[in-house]
Amino acid sequence: MSEENNGSGYVEAEYKRDSNYIQDRITADGAGGWPVEPNRYRLVVARACPWANRAVIVRRLLGLEPVISMGMCGPTHDERSWTFDLDAGGRDPVLGYERLQEAFLARDPNYPRGITVPAIVDVPSGAVVTNDFAQITLDFSTQWTAYHREGAPDLYPEHLRDEMDEVMERIYTEVNNGVYRCGFSGSQRAYDEAYQRLFTALDWLSERLEHRRFLMGGQITEADVRLFTTLARFDTVYHGHFKCNRQKLSEMPVLWAYARDLFQLPGFGDTIDFPQIKEHYYVVHTDINPTQIIPSGPDTSNWLMPHDREQLGARPFGDGTPPGPVFKGEEVPAGHGPGGIPHR
Amino acid sequence: MSEENNGSGYVEAEYKRDSNYIQDRITADGAGGWPVEPNRYRLVVARACPWANRAVIVRRLLGLEPVISMGMCGPTHDERSWTFDLDAGGRDPVLGYERLQEAFLARDPNYPRGITVPAIVDVPSGAVVTNDFAQITLDFSTQWTAYHREGAPDLYPEHLRDEMDEVMERIYTEVNNGVYRCGFSGSQRAYDEAYQRLFTALDWLSERLEHRRFLMGGQITEADVRLFTTLARFDTVYHGHFKCNRQKLSEMPVLWAYARDLFQLPGFGDTIDFPQIKEHYYVVHTDINPTQIIPSGPDTSNWLMPHDREQLGARPFGDGTPPGPVFKGEEVPAGHGPGGIPHR
Repeated sequence: MSEENNGSGYVEAEYKRDSNYIQDRITADGAGGWPVEPNRYRLVVARACPWANRAVIVRRLLGLEPVISMGMCGPTHDERSWTFDLDAGGRDPVLGYERLQEAFLARDPNYPRGITVPAIVDVPSGAVVTNDFAQITLDFSTQWTAYHREGAPDLYPEHLRDEMDEVMERIYTEVNNGVYRCGFSGSQRAYDEAYQRLFTALDWLSERLEHRRFLMGGQITEADVRLFTTLARFDTVYHGHFKCNRQKLSEMPVLWAYARDLFQLPGFGDTIDFPQIKEHYYVVHTDINPTQIIPSGPDTSNWLMPHDREQLGARPFGDGTPPGPVFKGEEVPAGHGPGGIPHR
Repeated sequence: MSEENNGSGYVEAEYKRDSNYIQDRITADGAGGWPVEPNRYRLVVARACPWANRAVIVRRLLGLEPVISMGMCGPTHDERSWTFDLDAGGRDPVLGYERLQEAFLARDPNYPRGITVPAIVDVPSGAVVTNDFAQITLDFSTQWTAYHREGAPDLYPEHLRDEMDEVMERIYTEVNNGVYRCGFSGSQRAYDEAYQRLFTALDWLSERLEHRRFLMGGQITEADVRLFTTLARFDTVYHGHFKCNRQKLSEMPVLWAYARDLFQLPGFGDTIDFPQIKEHYYVVHTDINPTQIIPSGPDTSNWLMPHDREQLGARPFGDGTPPGPVFKGEEVPAGHGPGGIPHR
């Protein structure tokens, strides 16, 4: 997403995320005008963004790469838009755009809100279908079933949905968005409250995960994906940049082992680009890091340490199987993963 | 000190400390015009400042409290001066000043440089004698011997001085000032170099301290005092605020045990006020923390964990003895030490 940078939440004491998204859905029955259809839609993401990271992980876990292509914006953006500066010639090779904003303007020439990732673009019209990040991944699980790979895990099992929805709601408000609330607080008091809320939730999660391998039991679900994308950024950016510093993740033993467990599963850690994550936060948020200097630390090789969580459940993918190798052309660059070379 | 805040080092890529101080010395023979004399001089400090912290520790280790009184500025200051805002009525009870600047102007009405702590003020004239922090503590050890308490340790032993001077020089340039060089870098490149230099030095110190209880062997010296004041602030401010984030001190096992060992000796940890330290750095340095929001973390109760360093040497004070209780009126407020209540 990018509205974090338009200052709208920052002038108030408590940071409030603009949660107005384009809420169209791509569905199996096509009732809303956007039918599931292979090779029609393009998922546009940025490695740096935790909300986009969800979609990258779920698409890969479900094996949707052959039917939904992926465009990748660079780690930084200006006030207006994410850009395709990583691509040859600075243009997305499928959409032909330099700026993701073009896809939003193709949808609505007066589009008034932030230009955010993830966004799904209808390739024929070049227009954004949806940037409603919370619905995108659930629809990958429930609407695109005809195109799931063989062995795709059930990330949103029907019999768990009521509890999952509650858990995911609390993770969203207290953790995913909670770190932003700490970082973008406009007053000491708002920050102090945000910090208390965040660590209260992390303590709750530590307790929940002490005797469960994953949030909903022995196998991964969408809830784990959603928690993971924040944990993967915790020590690298949220601890220092957002002042979420009661402890590092690496000092919270249960959560840290849980996070490493996920990281080491195919589909999770192989989507994480630490240098892009650092560059995004430290360069874009000039309100809280005016020098734009990017810290050299921390060492990320500890993500590969053994986690010893197998004893809590041996089948992370349930009746399914792990995804295969990363889709050709979508690999995180060598040296950008854990234990990689520094960002320069 | 305070020249950190006048921006002089920040416009250049590499931060350079203004090291011009008033270099008069108070000596036993009085040759320079300032003789050692009980109850004539007042040491002005701020709990927050690492350079002043040296003087607070050495004065206490040597038992000079009855002959050199101490004034205490608050944790924050403006562009002009440290202030006595902690005192009743906002004035130092001995000097009568509201701002430390007044003592510098009493010395030189056109005093052109930063108003820094520690400063020693001649009480009769109200004028600063010296703010040369590196010399002040050595002179406490070598010039004030007639007034040392019984059992005062020898912090600057003659037979060790050559090696000590080398060790202390490297600690000064690479560590004491090295953390500032990281935090106030004016370019990514300057920061990257500063970070490498800092952690290279910390690795050297870890190695040196692996089999020695203290820097010069089995007993504390001035060198330990000088390293301690930076280590005591490392996780609380330098790790996040100055981006010294390869690891926390608490993730460097040898240095961390060494730092806890010192902290737990009378004269070291009992001079540390964590809330004042945090308030100083996060509020004063608006160039790098424009929101002035003070992080709630980290938890500091870990400073009291066992260190298991006694096996490397059992006599930290050598032939001397530990200092007694903190001088009446100079105690760090309850709740401001390790494991204290949060800063508000």
